[in-house]
Amino acid sequence: MSRFFSKKYTALQPYIPGEQPKDMRYIKLNTNESPFPPPKSVVKAVREQSLKCNLYSDPTCGALVEKAAQIYGVKKTQILPTNGSDEILNFAFMAFCDKDTPAVFADITYGFYSVFADLHGVPYRTIPLKDDFSIDYRDYCGVNATVFIANPNAPTGLALSKPEIEEIIRSNPNNVVVIDEAYVDFGGESCVDLIEKYDNLLVTQTFSKSRSLAGARLGFGFANEQLLADLNAIKYSTNPYNVNRMTMEAGREALCQQAYFDKKCKEICNTRAFTADRLTRLGFTVLNSKTNFLFIKSRKIGGKELYEKLKEKGVLVRHFNGERISEFNRVTIGTKKQMEAFLFCVEQILKEKENEKSK
Amino acid sequence: MSRFFSKKYTALQPYIPGEQPKDMRYIKLNTNESPFPPPKSVVKAVREQSLKCNLYSDPTCGALVEKAAQIYGVKKTQILPTNGSDEILNFAFMAFCDKDTPAVFADITYGFYSVFADLHGVPYRTIPLKDDFSIDYRDYCGVNATVFIANPNAPTGLALSKPEIEEIIRSNPNNVVVIDEAYVDFGGESCVDLIEKYDNLLVTQTFSKSRSLAGARLGFGFANEQLLADLNAIKYSTNPYNVNRMTMEAGREALCQQAYFDKKCKEICNTRAFTADRLTRLGFTVLNSKTNFLFIKSRKIGGKELYEKLKEKGVLVRHFNGERISEFNRVTIGTKKQMEAFLFCVEQILKEKENEKSK
Repeated sequence: MSRFFSKKYTALQPYIPGEQPKDMRYIKLNTNESPFPPPKSVVKAVREQSLKCNLYSDPTCGALVEKAAQIYGVKKTQILPTNGSDEILNFAFMAFCDKDTPAVFADITYGFYSVFADLHGVPYRTIPLKDDFSIDYRDYCGVNATVFIANPNAPTGLALSKPEIEEIIRSNPNNVVVIDEAYVDFGGESCVDLIEKYDNLLVTQTFSKSRSLAGARLGFGFANEQLLADLNAIKYSTNPYNVNRMTMEAGREALCQQAYFDKKCKEICNTRAFTADRLTRLGFTVLNSKTNFLFIKSRKIGGKELYEKLKEKGVLVRHFNGERISEFNRVTIGTKKQMEAFLFCVEQILKEKENEKSK
Repeated sequence: MSRFFSKKYTALQPYIPGEQPKDMRYIKLNTNESPFPPPKSVVKAVREQSLKCNLYSDPTCGALVEKAAQIYGVKKTQILPTNGSDEILNFAFMAFCDKDTPAVFADITYGFYSVFADLHGVPYRTIPLKDDFSIDYRDYCGVNATVFIANPNAPTGLALSKPEIEEIIRSNPNNVVVIDEAYVDFGGESCVDLIEKYDNLLVTQTFSKSRSLAGARLGFGFANEQLLADLNAIKYSTNPYNVNRMTMEAGREALCQQAYFDKKCKEICNTRAFTADRLTRLGFTVLNSKTNFLFIKSRKIGGKELYEKLKEKGVLVRHFNGERISEFNRVTIGTKKQMEAFLFCVEQILKEKENEKSK
């Protein structure tokens, strides 16, 4: 920290993204990316745009928004594309929270919420998950604060039902409720269609998980026109050309390839079931995931130790040091082949651990 | 504005980017883009990355930073790539300004500085340009505030010399001085090599002007390691994957094609001289531009009227309604052919105007 850094950030703890070590080739199951490349037509669309990169992108993202409105069944004025969904979440913290309007979110959820709050000097309160790591929706009813809920939640993978989410929205008529649907395409229920009904709902989604575009950076905010106008005021005061030409067109083309992604999502859900089953047989606790990852714990080996031993064997998973979850690991669902390799390593590690004990 | 929008933004006036009308095909001279497409090798580099877009980009932008360090002759730890230079400027306002550390910039300069200040609740003071629209560097010495200077300045196109900039940096040892070098490659003197000497200097650059990548969104911040660490703290608390894969690689490849861009910059400077000469003969006041645009005023026609009549004829230039500059227009230097078309239209408009008067 330099002597020039604003004192307001004294306690700021930046987000730590999943590691990308370069020392060897890893099976990468630590950042919930899709194991499948984007379809070829996306590559072609990007190529055409890259030739025109001397010209600024369309700040309104017109062509992308038009296609998205059609796919999601909303109005063009109800969609804001952003540089990943992190950007729309950041905008939401800026627009709808301040020192008089605190934020509320779960104690165990996407780690960025508290970072955004700290960055913008927003007071916040965390609500503990239940012992089974699920969210009790009643904890978020009438809280008199801006609500942030990842649904399904990360890193647990557990989802609230749509009626439960709707009750949270309904019970907080004077506060914005942000539903972060980064993982919704793997088994959750989307609330995008509720934005017409409630003026206090912002739904965020990302192209990083189910749409194979993590490296392109594209997210969406869905809300009624008034909330969208607020978020646009923040966007046009931050970075009017926030989405570049190539990403914009990659996203538009991805929306045209819904069948490809539906198939891949189904494949991931099948591989998730296969992996969960095998892990359960190995004695793991496996939470009931509605996402493209599993949150797992073994009685036979500690969370950190399993993470480290997997890394030694060339498999990266995500370990969080937080209270209550340090015995767990979050494992992205890759291809069937990748998960077989992961399971093979887990079996080996458990065997080695057993041999160690019997010595 | 919704009833949920934070009251702190009551006075916020978002930035208005240059128009991109779709009603007809325009000669676009209003946003200072390069008229030249990026070289073919950039297109190839982007293609390769687009195939890998299912994976997150490298948050450290390792390969890009390595190449940039080599080209700019600085350390890898002294460069921060961002989503356009708007993002690094935004980070600078966040990191180095607050209610106790105001910002200072010219009354006529890049319109986004005041927007960033308002967005983050930063008090600021503007310093009037001299009557000839130049900056008196002494106005910025020892100002006890964070200094933002576009050098060369926009929309005037005028530049301060490097010794003048250095005096500003030296005289403000307890405040950060931000030198925005968006247009430096068209005749300005860069201060990047001063970051080793001064711990209070941040230099920003962009790939949007001289490097034909406005639509890819890439900017750089150059500063010593301590300032860079502060800016990285903001980045990792905002959007760790702020630069996408395709842009990162487009930027790296662009840095490998320095000869191409040098040639194009030279061509633009030649076309600028040609255009300035012709406009001067037509009776225009033309400021001494060190950028890829001209700031021009006619005694024969008002600034707004000229802008409107050019638009009618299919030529877009940028008109600002601000005090002291409303009689001017900012005209991007395009290809020689585009400028000939622009000059043809100007001549026509002036003739029509004369005929009107003589009626």
